[in-house]
Amino acid sequence: MPDQRSITATLLITCRDQKGLVASVSEFLYRHDGNIIHADQHTDAAASMTPGQEEGVFVQRVEWELDGFALTPEEIAPAFQPIAERFGMRWSLRFSDYTPRLALFVSKLPHCLYDLLARWRMGEFRADIPLIISNHEDHQPIADSFGVSYYCFEIEHETKEIQEQKIVRLLEEHAVDVIVLARYMQVLGEAFVARYPGRIINIHHSFLPAFAGARPYHHAHERGVKLIGATAHYVTTELDQGPIIAQDVVQVSHRDSVPDLVRKGRDLEKLVLARALDLHLRNRVVVYGNKTVVFD
Amino acid sequence: MPDQRSITATLLITCRDQKGLVASVSEFLYRHDGNIIHADQHTDAAASMTPGQEEGVFVQRVEWELDGFALTPEEIAPAFQPIAERFGMRWSLRFSDYTPRLALFVSKLPHCLYDLLARWRMGEFRADIPLIISNHEDHQPIADSFGVSYYCFEIEHETKEIQEQKIVRLLEEHAVDVIVLARYMQVLGEAFVARYPGRIINIHHSFLPAFAGARPYHHAHERGVKLIGATAHYVTTELDQGPIIAQDVVQVSHRDSVPDLVRKGRDLEKLVLARALDLHLRNRVVVYGNKTVVFD
Amino acid sequence: MPDQRSITATLLITCRDQKGLVASVSEFLYRHDGNIIHADQHTDAAASMTPGQEEGVFVQRVEWELDGFALTPEEIAPAFQPIAERFGMRWSLRFSDYTPRLALFVSKLPHCLYDLLARWRMGEFRADIPLIISNHEDHQPIADSFGVSYYCFEIEHETKEIQEQKIVRLLEEHAVDVIVLARYMQVLGEAFVARYPGRIINIHHSFLPAFAGARPYHHAHERGVKLIGATAHYVTTELDQGPIIAQDVVQVSHRDSVPDLVRKGRDLEKLVLARALDLHLRNRVVVYGNKTVVFD
Amino acid sequence: MPDQRSITATLLITCRDQKGLVASVSEFLYRHDGNIIHADQHTDAAASMTPGQEEGVFVQRVEWELDGFALTPEEIAPAFQPIAERFGMRWSLRFSDYTPRLALFVSKLPHCLYDLLARWRMGEFRADIPLIISNHEDHQPIADSFGVSYYCFEIEHETKEIQEQKIVRLLEEHAVDVIVLARYMQVLGEAFVARYPGRIINIHHSFLPAFAGARPYHHAHERGVKLIGATAHYVTTELDQGPIIAQDVVQVSHRDSVPDLVRKGRDLEKLVLARALDLHLRNRVVVYGNKTVVFD
Repeated sequence: MPDQRSITATLLITCRDQKGLVASVSEFLYRHDGNIIHADQHTDAAASMTPGQEEGVFVQRVEWELDGFALTPEEIAPAFQPIAERFGMRWSLRFSDYTPRLALFVSKLPHCLYDLLARWRMGEFRADIPLIISNHEDHQPIADSFGVSYYCFEIEHETKEIQEQKIVRLLEEHAVDVIVLARYMQVLGEAFVARYPGRIINIHHSFLPAFAGARPYHHAHERGVKLIGATAHYVTTELDQGPIIAQDVVQVSHRDSVPDLVRKGRDLEKLVLARALDLHLRNRVVVYGNKTVVFD
Repeated sequence: MPDQRSITATLLITCRDQKGLVASVSEFLYRHDGNIIHADQHTDAAASMTPGQEEGVFVQRVEWELDGFALTPEEIAPAFQPIAERFGMRWSLRFSDYTPRLALFVSKLPHCLYDLLARWRMGEFRADIPLIISNHEDHQPIADSFGVSYYCFEIEHETKEIQEQKIVRLLEEHAVDVIVLARYMQVLGEAFVARYPGRIINIHHSFLPAFAGARPYHHAHERGVKLIGATAHYVTTELDQGPIIAQDVVQVSHRDSVPDLVRKGRDLEKLVLARALDLHLRNRVVVYGNKTVVFD
Repeated sequence: MPDQRSITATLLITCRDQKGLVASVSEFLYRHDGNIIHADQHTDAAASMTPGQEEGVFVQRVEWELDGFALTPEEIAPAFQPIAERFGMRWSLRFSDYTPRLALFVSKLPHCLYDLLARWRMGEFRADIPLIISNHEDHQPIADSFGVSYYCFEIEHETKEIQEQKIVRLLEEHAVDVIVLARYMQVLGEAFVARYPGRIINIHHSFLPAFAGARPYHHAHERGVKLIGATAHYVTTELDQGPIIAQDVVQVSHRDSVPDLVRKGRDLEKLVLARALDLHLRNRVVVYGNKTVVFD
Repeated sequence: MPDQRSITATLLITCRDQKGLVASVSEFLYRHDGNIIHADQHTDAAASMTPGQEEGVFVQRVEWELDGFALTPEEIAPAFQPIAERFGMRWSLRFSDYTPRLALFVSKLPHCLYDLLARWRMGEFRADIPLIISNHEDHQPIADSFGVSYYCFEIEHETKEIQEQKIVRLLEEHAVDVIVLARYMQVLGEAFVARYPGRIINIHHSFLPAFAGARPYHHAHERGVKLIGATAHYVTTELDQGPIIAQDVVQVSHRDSVPDLVRKGRDLEKLVLARALDLHLRNRVVVYGNKTVVFD
């Protein structure tokens, strides 16, 4: 789907709920002749920017065309800064002609890897994928067939920290923005995770918080559930506890053995991970507390 | 769910897409100290307010608390009028303490009727239901048990027009705002429909536009579909062609006979009709052209 | 949907997986001129009838018309007994003209109660509902409007056992077969539960095993899930751990407050509980281990 | 998912509904020591094997292990023949160690092609894919990267018949069993279709029978539907009218432009086509009349 629209700018804003927020932002854009193509906001009355204080959180996404806008891309942030300061905003500004750089991490099961590479090749994502990282040699041929570099780092308990440091160096060399754990079955260390806050997306093969941890399909089979799920979330230092971006489920029955659950789950995993990555890359996701606002 | 928030006002706006719309409306509210609790907008670049012209349509919903607002309810419309005129808006203003009055129409199958009455009794809808209209005597006891008046108008081809005129008079006596066709199997005449534009909600027991018209479950069974659906839509003079408010589907298989489809479909019909009515009553639906924008 | 078919008999069989099971049962029916209208079986290779032994479990459901069958209803069980003994079957025989007797239990929220009573009144379930039991007085008027007796037993920690004994006596007087916990918020005592194995159906307002226990919608909101669920299960002595009969989910988003989750969840609860009860009453559910086989 | 079970045989049977069918088939298997691992049947009382006669149709699928079976694969069909003749069965016998040969047809959009090739490469399907056929040169590189031959046949109105004859010759050379139209946008000629009854699977990008024919996403957008669908079906000489194997839908809203529908639809198309092909290859689908029985 080639994007034929002009280049756009997107503001993602989080702050304490206050009167005048929407008016100030829209007035700012109007004053500079901005043509808004998407604007959405959310107020969570029960949430708080300052732990311990009840105040309400305001989250906004606004996207407008640069074509005809009175400010150049470089001028926007400085011009907006006073408004941000006045309301105490946490904010970021993104441009649609920036191409984020992804690293895909994978272990033994390549279905998500294949799916993301094929989508990328067909132009579904605006992104570059300079490298794939794995703890197994197996998928070198897949990487080759898509023309992506493949690096293998075997992870043992005692080598993990040092290996992850090497991985970080590699990611920095390749200027990676976003890490996608496409069925990467190693738990990342705290130092690693802390380096990429809100920038590591994982797919977990259950409907979290049910069946967190290892072997969710076995546990689902044992419990006799009638639906199985998949969950894409940002990785935080607590395993399978990060902010959820997307979830979906599929019907199962007593007829489904564990291998059947694995088979049905694979399709869910691909779909849910791709959906989450797409939302992230189109700047549709804002994290606050341990939750996401998804402006879709 | 008793609503514990203060009374709110809601503006529903449709007009030609222009710069400054969002800014003007939000500035208007900010200037009068409005605390916005929901704001959403939609631009359909391919649609048009003026048939034959390509221009884009802008639709907005904004809801704010009257508590603390500088204008009284009576002052809002006159104060907003200049903005509306400047942009050529089609608009309406609703207050959350207004209780709309519903008439439920039903023929032989009472599942939607039962469902709506029970929801109403439990306080799910903010509405009064002064009367039920049917072309059969059967459901008088249901009406009695919920304390609602029941009127029966037998409809024959030659008596239809005169009977519908009587129904209109009855609806006017009861000051009815919204008509819900809860499996009412008579096609309403053009004069009747024209009297209630965007105010008659029907449930059709198929996934429109598939299986429009009579006996959709029989046709679905014959075609061997793997899903059946239900569609809630506003009634227009073209049968089953009005703007769609809500749709849903459920899986079926070769095991399902026509009575099974009817049984599974009943649950869908109840759910989809109730969802559409709820959206309508909470002023979440805006019609433009033959479509709806649903701000949910 | 009045059932126009002739009376049927249904055999539900569970035993160790062995060769010749299907052949023996179908030969038995064929020999007596049985016209099978539904037959389904399931083999769970990983399960076991004898704890600790790996052997595989076989579960079968077969339903045939009594019209034209060579045995009278009374003769069937004795004639089948030798086959059952030969294979070591746990089995039961049901006739479609038997009308099971239900007790509905409810606490404060009546949406499931209303839904089940309306379905019953419309003839969706083949069942009698002689009584409703509650720990609150509130729903007497609903019971009255459907002509069902209403009994209130206030439950305090210290009175629970004695109250439940009184309830048991009442259930026995009314010859109740199946107990439906239609949002009954008291945990039943072990003695009570033990009396009705596989005959108490509960609706839990989450996608089990996620959010077992109290206040699941609050926990779901806190965790920021993108789907909420409902689970109908047989009650066992472990809270929310019994065999699952039916589950479903619905999409939610950051826009949904806890009251919104409650509202959306209500519809799920009604649907999932009604589906589970319908499956149970049509003899479609077989429990083995802590799971169900649902022959739908 | 490597299949670790022993080789199995599967009987697919269709005939006029008669007493003794299940007993005879299960007795046949039991007599030869067959270990049944799946058996399912379906009776459609309203259908007919002989047009114009009301009689009921019986469809059965039974799968058993060859390991321990008293007959060799070659002996099974002759041994079963007398039973088939006695009941007037239309039947087929399949062995799980047979590897069907697929041809994938594709036009401009390669998402289904990519998806099927990746699944095949990961071993999800038991099949060989000797060739891809297209009416465009574009996807040669994809074919190369998966090591599959690629043949391009440009189709013009006047060359269609002759080109399809060439394609048939090619399919015969490659001993192709099943043709998968993976978004192949040419209507196949009658002669071609007649050659492969029940062996051409198409994915149509709508919820049939809604939006049959060209540009379904445009029509869906115009109609303002709230769900879009995809349908996998066997190809017959009537366009988009063949027996449906699988269908699914996904929610859309007013926010979704035609390109958004195309994007969301792509994922559905991949999923539904892969599901249908998988069911077909595992001998789970039986066609009768213009419908399928799917034994899943």
